[in-house]
Amino acid sequence: MSTARRSADYVIVGAGVSGLTAARRLAGAGKSVVVVEASDRVGGRTVNLDVGDGVITEGGGQWVGPGQDSVLALIDELRLDTFKTFVDGKSIYLRNGKTKKYDGTVPPLSPLVLADFAQLQIRLERMARSVPIDEPWRARKARAWDSRTFGHWLDANAWTDEAKLILTVALTVTNAEDLHSTSMLVQLQRIAASGGLNHMIEITDGAQESRVVGGSALIAQRMADALGPDVVLDSPVTEIRQDADGVLVRSARVDVDAKRVIVAMSPADVGRIAIADLPARRRMLQRRLSGGSESKLFAVYDTPFWREQGLNGQALTDLPMAGYVVDNSPPDGSVGILLTFVGTAGAGYGLHWPDAVLDDPDARRDAFLQALTTLFGPQAAHPIAYLEKDWTHEPWISGCVASRPPGLLTQYTDADRTPVGRIHWAGTETAVLNQGYLDGAVSAGERAAREVLAGESAPSQGESRSATSDRAATTLAASSANG
Amino acid sequence: MSTARRSADYVIVGAGVSGLTAARRLAGAGKSVVVVEASDRVGGRTVNLDVGDGVITEGGGQWVGPGQDSVLALIDELRLDTFKTFVDGKSIYLRNGKTKKYDGTVPPLSPLVLADFAQLQIRLERMARSVPIDEPWRARKARAWDSRTFGHWLDANAWTDEAKLILTVALTVTNAEDLHSTSMLVQLQRIAASGGLNHMIEITDGAQESRVVGGSALIAQRMADALGPDVVLDSPVTEIRQDADGVLVRSARVDVDAKRVIVAMSPADVGRIAIADLPARRRMLQRRLSGGSESKLFAVYDTPFWREQGLNGQALTDLPMAGYVVDNSPPDGSVGILLTFVGTAGAGYGLHWPDAVLDDPDARRDAFLQALTTLFGPQAAHPIAYLEKDWTHEPWISGCVASRPPGLLTQYTDADRTPVGRIHWAGTETAVLNQGYLDGAVSAGERAAREVLAGESAPSQGESRSATSDRAATTLAASSANG
Repeated sequence: MSTARRSADYVIVGAGVSGLTAARRLAGAGKSVVVVEASDRVGGRTVNLDVGDGVITEGGGQWVGPGQDSVLALIDELRLDTFKTFVDGKSIYLRNGKTKKYDGTVPPLSPLVLADFAQLQIRLERMARSVPIDEPWRARKARAWDSRTFGHWLDANAWTDEAKLILTVALTVTNAEDLHSTSMLVQLQRIAASGGLNHMIEITDGAQESRVVGGSALIAQRMADALGPDVVLDSPVTEIRQDADGVLVRSARVDVDAKRVIVAMSPADVGRIAIADLPARRRMLQRRLSGGSESKLFAVYDTPFWREQGLNGQALTDLPMAGYVVDNSPPDGSVGILLTFVGTAGAGYGLHWPDAVLDDPDARRDAFLQALTTLFGPQAAHPIAYLEKDWTHEPWISGCVASRPPGLLTQYTDADRTPVGRIHWAGTETAVLNQGYLDGAVSAGERAAREVLAGESAPSQGESRSATSDRAATTLAASSANG
Repeated sequence: MSTARRSADYVIVGAGVSGLTAARRLAGAGKSVVVVEASDRVGGRTVNLDVGDGVITEGGGQWVGPGQDSVLALIDELRLDTFKTFVDGKSIYLRNGKTKKYDGTVPPLSPLVLADFAQLQIRLERMARSVPIDEPWRARKARAWDSRTFGHWLDANAWTDEAKLILTVALTVTNAEDLHSTSMLVQLQRIAASGGLNHMIEITDGAQESRVVGGSALIAQRMADALGPDVVLDSPVTEIRQDADGVLVRSARVDVDAKRVIVAMSPADVGRIAIADLPARRRMLQRRLSGGSESKLFAVYDTPFWREQGLNGQALTDLPMAGYVVDNSPPDGSVGILLTFVGTAGAGYGLHWPDAVLDDPDARRDAFLQALTTLFGPQAAHPIAYLEKDWTHEPWISGCVASRPPGLLTQYTDADRTPVGRIHWAGTETAVLNQGYLDGAVSAGERAAREVLAGESAPSQGESRSATSDRAATTLAASSANG
């Protein structure tokens, strides 16, 4: 295979939502771009899974909601439609083998558990208010919060196992990682930056309110269609070089000369690319981040039969294989789809799955269907299809959203998004608002596009880099003085 | 370059101390072996740095001490000699700008700080006693301890900043990582498995008591010399395949057919090799471990001038660039060498270095020499040589000893060492005793060698694998019942 050589104003590495958004904004500003993508498709961590008969379900990021202005504006601009996540009917709450059905968003809890949930929420939101969302490492208690996990805080502060279960199930899904691995400070930043705890975990008026008609993968697809041959697939980037005049991005199928590059990948995957002279903070961040270990499991039925029973398909449970279940049927309800999330190494509340469930797709399927049967009755045992999306087996993506373990945010601060000369960074992991969501991918791509456009009139070492150094020098001086 | 094809009873991936020990033990049992190494040298994370005039200093693991029976026996077997780390004279303790000189192992602390240190040590060792060293995830409080960092525990339990400083400096060196990133459970296991806190941090009667004459790199070199052409350098392994009959290890210069393979690498680096059907626990462990961010800095003087001042070259300080300093001169004192350790992203006690120190070797050198001048006087400003060993810039090794962040030990348990069919694992990260030390590398290699020899009469799915599954199944059942 011969390697072509192209020139453009800017080159973007990664044709996910973030990279394509950056490319679209630059093209819209009259600049020439080339987007280089390792895999054979666009979309990154959004993908439509084919259910048959023209129906899809979403293997990756899929929800949008109020407050997520960047992605909502982009969806509108792309002339895509949204529809509401199905919520009509009762939800199921199951704990200790007892099933309760309820209307609205709050499960039927005892006054004690409700009070516990309230005190946890008040504490979390009070702490979150003291976290600067763009610089969480500057919170007064940043070091203490970044040196424990959210699970450790929850174990120490919850009065009841039941409130702990509910928060754990809800937040494990949004974190894509075991809460006993993820930093408390990261959790507080996310609560602060996504409109509060209720907004994070709720459907109606929350971050899971709406879906894209035709699937979230259409966002990237429409942007790629508009860019046409400027999106090069099947072309893993192997090296990025830069000098005073520009960058050279080398990939399997094309080498691109440009003024600047936007790397729109999870920092956990950037280590695949040879880049000389990365700052230590950036290099270590890339090494120490890893993709989230969450998978999505889907059972597809010829009809959303639970709706006829007055159920909306939602469940919040202590069942290991179905902690949180939600109706993921297409807007017309032509088939019924139930979705759950599982972590690769165990759920978030003290559970370790047998290796059979972790490593054997058939055993996993059986365990999931058994849980659904417990929740929705014998009809759930007989799906017309079963699908999984395990992001830990992708060739070019090492997991779903990367979640920072303790210490990373305070040690590496803004290395995720600080430009390195002519190299800029996008991807939802670099977003300030709604990090980990589709909205974060879009806003990060737009921020990176603004950076490179501003860079044309600025020196190649971005201002934010110098600002970081200045702050660190101040910290060192203070620490030495106090030492 | 053509790829040769060889057959052997066993193939070992990695010619570090652990892999070569495994190969030596197998060869000693009359088996044929091939050792395949990616880099152009043997030794892994041991390496001699040339100081000139036949003098070396050790860039990697270097110390051995009482209780480290595996490495001491191997050194003896290889007819290498050891000598005592230099301790004659006074040590320096510097805090808040005040220097004190003292004899023995305990700095001159106030009664309150001594009491604080004692209460911390008593608590740590009491907790450590409840941790089964071979299965720390079974400790009754394992989940609580594995969901917070050691730094978080220390901040919550130390009465005085001074005791905190001393423990932090001492344990950051042995952990090769910021204590606000590493799991409390991991720390307790290390205390339990290496003979207690004093043993870990002390020189005399401790883990830093002795060094190898000629440098620790001779351990690997002597073993490689004995194996001769069965050690293949410059040959990165790209893929490991296995079937019912054996394994095929593919590498740049040689493909090897064998009955079993021992992969003797940090789990953090195994992801470079394509291995089909790794269990989820193993795959995720490999992704989520990363090499430690510690570097060694050396100042070389024409004479160990501090000895003439009655100093032994040791210092424990709150100076960011010289928290722990030790005399690393050759046994004959023909030149003087002072050694310190720095983390790549900041020291362990609340400090963030300016990017200049992290990214500019000249600035780092100047900061180090300035700190040494503060400690040892103006002579320290004029070394005849300055050397660094930064393990984060090696082509085939992603850092020094990997330290587990919170959640890994309880989620992935013994995935570090559980065989996967005909694939066995060595490397100091897989050791039960003295993990992270040279001794752990040796004992892990010997354990892996025993496994493959035992495997000849056993089915290819090792017993420990089944045991793990059985335990996990029990846990699942218990969790569901309690749920």
